[in-house]
Amino acid sequence: MTPEEELHPDDVQHHLREVQELLARQKLVEDLVHRQDMPRHELVESLVHKQHVAELRSKLDSLHPADIAYILEALPLEERLFVWDLVKAERDGEILLEVSDAVRESLIETMAPEELKAAAETLDADELADLAPDLPPEVIQDVFQSLDHEGREQLRAAMSYPEDSVGALMDFDLMTVREDVTLEVVLRYLRRFDELPDHTDKLFVVDREDRLKGILSLESLLLNDPESLVADVMRKEVMISFEPADDADDAAQAFERYDLVSAPVIGPDKRLIGRLTVADVVDYIREESEAEILSHAGLREEEDIFASVWDSVKNRWSWLAVNLVTAFVASRVIGAFEGSIEKLVALAALMPIVAGIGGNSGNQTVTMIVRAIAIGQVEQSAMQRLLKKEISVALINGLVWGGLLGILSWWLYHSAALGVVMTAAMTLNLLLAATAGVAIPMLRQRLGADPAIGGSVMITALTDSGGFFIFLGLATLFLL
Amino acid sequence: MTPEEELHPDDVQHHLREVQELLARQKLVEDLVHRQDMPRHELVESLVHKQHVAELRSKLDSLHPADIAYILEALPLEERLFVWDLVKAERDGEILLEVSDAVRESLIETMAPEELKAAAETLDADELADLAPDLPPEVIQDVFQSLDHEGREQLRAAMSYPEDSVGALMDFDLMTVREDVTLEVVLRYLRRFDELPDHTDKLFVVDREDRLKGILSLESLLLNDPESLVADVMRKEVMISFEPADDADDAAQAFERYDLVSAPVIGPDKRLIGRLTVADVVDYIREESEAEILSHAGLREEEDIFASVWDSVKNRWSWLAVNLVTAFVASRVIGAFEGSIEKLVALAALMPIVAGIGGNSGNQTVTMIVRAIAIGQVEQSAMQRLLKKEISVALINGLVWGGLLGILSWWLYHSAALGVVMTAAMTLNLLLAATAGVAIPMLRQRLGADPAIGGSVMITALTDSGGFFIFLGLATLFLL
Repeated sequence: MTPEEELHPDDVQHHLREVQELLARQKLVEDLVHRQDMPRHELVESLVHKQHVAELRSKLDSLHPADIAYILEALPLEERLFVWDLVKAERDGEILLEVSDAVRESLIETMAPEELKAAAETLDADELADLAPDLPPEVIQDVFQSLDHEGREQLRAAMSYPEDSVGALMDFDLMTVREDVTLEVVLRYLRRFDELPDHTDKLFVVDREDRLKGILSLESLLLNDPESLVADVMRKEVMISFEPADDADDAAQAFERYDLVSAPVIGPDKRLIGRLTVADVVDYIREESEAEILSHAGLREEEDIFASVWDSVKNRWSWLAVNLVTAFVASRVIGAFEGSIEKLVALAALMPIVAGIGGNSGNQTVTMIVRAIAIGQVEQSAMQRLLKKEISVALINGLVWGGLLGILSWWLYHSAALGVVMTAAMTLNLLLAATAGVAIPMLRQRLGADPAIGGSVMITALTDSGGFFIFLGLATLFLL
Repeated sequence: MTPEEELHPDDVQHHLREVQELLARQKLVEDLVHRQDMPRHELVESLVHKQHVAELRSKLDSLHPADIAYILEALPLEERLFVWDLVKAERDGEILLEVSDAVRESLIETMAPEELKAAAETLDADELADLAPDLPPEVIQDVFQSLDHEGREQLRAAMSYPEDSVGALMDFDLMTVREDVTLEVVLRYLRRFDELPDHTDKLFVVDREDRLKGILSLESLLLNDPESLVADVMRKEVMISFEPADDADDAAQAFERYDLVSAPVIGPDKRLIGRLTVADVVDYIREESEAEILSHAGLREEEDIFASVWDSVKNRWSWLAVNLVTAFVASRVIGAFEGSIEKLVALAALMPIVAGIGGNSGNQTVTMIVRAIAIGQVEQSAMQRLLKKEISVALINGLVWGGLLGILSWWLYHSAALGVVMTAAMTLNLLLAATAGVAIPMLRQRLGADPAIGGSVMITALTDSGGFFIFLGLATLFLL
């Protein structure tokens, strides 16, 4: 890189385009060679080819691992693997950490066990733990053997915590100092290192048993008189610390609320065992919100956009299957009223409106309640109050929009009675949607399930079947 | 606070419960007094009341502003305002910054202009800019007058950038040094301060014209020999910097990719004008993902869960109105085939399945494409490839699930022809959903609109009307 070069936020796009261009030029040569029936090995030997490859390799060497990961994700499989082969082996580990799960799988599949082992050995214990689920068991076994005692303990610890816990996010890059030394001693101690762990904004003050006694921020280290004792300038009170079993969501909210950069993770006896950094938290927040958005559409995981058709079908089929069942149930509800529809075919045209608006309104309620539960603002005791409010909103919407549709139906089918049934059905279905929209997430929470999952499918199933039943039922009672 | 007290991630829940308890006790006394017909002013004078209020006040004084904000959001309006009155006036500003928009409005409504002005004057220019849209114009005018020249310039700058730009997120807490001094001089300079700005992980090296020459991380300041010159240890190359007009999304991705804590914002001539910190980025990421999740359900903004029924109706009505229109259109499509339904009433029961599954499948495609566009991985040129893949997925799903439903229909209605029509309609509607699911977000992007917005409504509208039309049309052609 030239000195003074600057990175701008959208530079990764330029990098991607450059790599794509190099690949395209490479492909052009290959096509040409192909048309001339030159054997493959001659191509690989050819000067032009070598030049392109060298150019590409040096481009890749100059890039940040996260940028290489980005480029790999944006390339179709064949080109992705071509580029992956050109990446220096010692960078494989850090890049594998950065790519999405789907792309990671596609890369690991092509690597020999020795390559994987070499890549894994460049990583810290906490990073290894993240990668481990995707590695073949024999590779993990080998890597585990190659670790020292402390590394093995750390890897075992990191792998033992559930996915959404602080323990799974923490790292072990701890800078610790004793409380009975002066800041000058700490400063001299630090100068012995070539670098500090990423996101070091504070040092942890521990005693001989590694128990956390306080926190020495770099700020107080820099601003105080070097002659001061660590014990006198460290922070002993209101230390924010986590335990490995703490919920990652709560930790993320604490980072957000208190604007933290790093925080200690302590075990039994206040023993310092790890550290949580804002980088881990940012990744976690992003992944969680991606997962939530994907789950709304019934996608189980982020799809590699160049995934095979078959992988995509697998990622999506379970949701479609569930919806098929609920749609089939709704269809049978209609089936039960076929006699009524035969007599008054207008019902067939009007019934999807009742069901559809109910589903939309119910989804609004569910989304609201789920978010309020997620940020911890809804106690079960507030359920009644929320229910009352949602029912009032539904009543207003039902009378306004249902009334409007009633008038439209009256005008279309010249039947005032049909209009009244339409309005009544809309209102009742919106009330059903409001009640279920509050009750479903609240009940799921009380039962210990994640209130965010499945609420949308359940409410839509209920308002579809319920809407058809209410509308066709009322019509059968009052119109026929 | 007692020394050695620690904050745990879910402490804010305990705080909330404590405050609620104090409020409940307070209410008990009030009720008692009320039943004895004691006049209100005597209550306020009463010892018990004073004691409760003092307890609550001291509890609030001990809390972090973000925690007070959290508690205010979790309390119903009356209790919220009671608590708000007890908060020390000089903390009003920072708390107003922390609460959600809806709650901020409810608090500002009750404050006198002088109170608002006093609160605003405790804030920095970038914080003021965040609050300004919610303040009455005369308050902003007054605050603006009270600022010094630099403050006015900063406020003007911060307010001039669009909401989703780096300029709107940056702050002005810059620590700058010159390149021709030694680290020892920098260290002595820093010791003159009582504190560093939050999230200071680096100092900015500038020349006399405030042009950014390099970056001196606290790490290199600490690890290098104090006799070294700043110019020799500062980082000159691969500095990541932003411009105020840069897209906040790109900046957030850069922070995530390169694990940044802070980064300089530079104007024309590389002049340093501000700073972006990971705290701002985390808040931005959270807000964006909230907005995306809310918009899926057609909620315009986060609703204060204790908002009035009327506010909720306003927040939700526009989405229901749009859906009403699309549902009405779909209903008219059915209306056009009333003759066919009258002859074969089974069509009425089966048609919602075709429409519903199409909508679900289309939403999966839209979600996938929108996410791929958001992370910048889809060039317009990839459209054809993606389309091909989505169509293949749709074809498989259509034949499998459509086939299954065809068999079910055949079995239910003893008509093989009906089963074939069902399968064909499902497949065609899924193909329509796949095509539109790729095309809608891509076209919106090409037209410069946000591909994430409205895709779900459009696809559902299309697959509903389209599904009814295809199924009833095929049935009319081949069955009647």
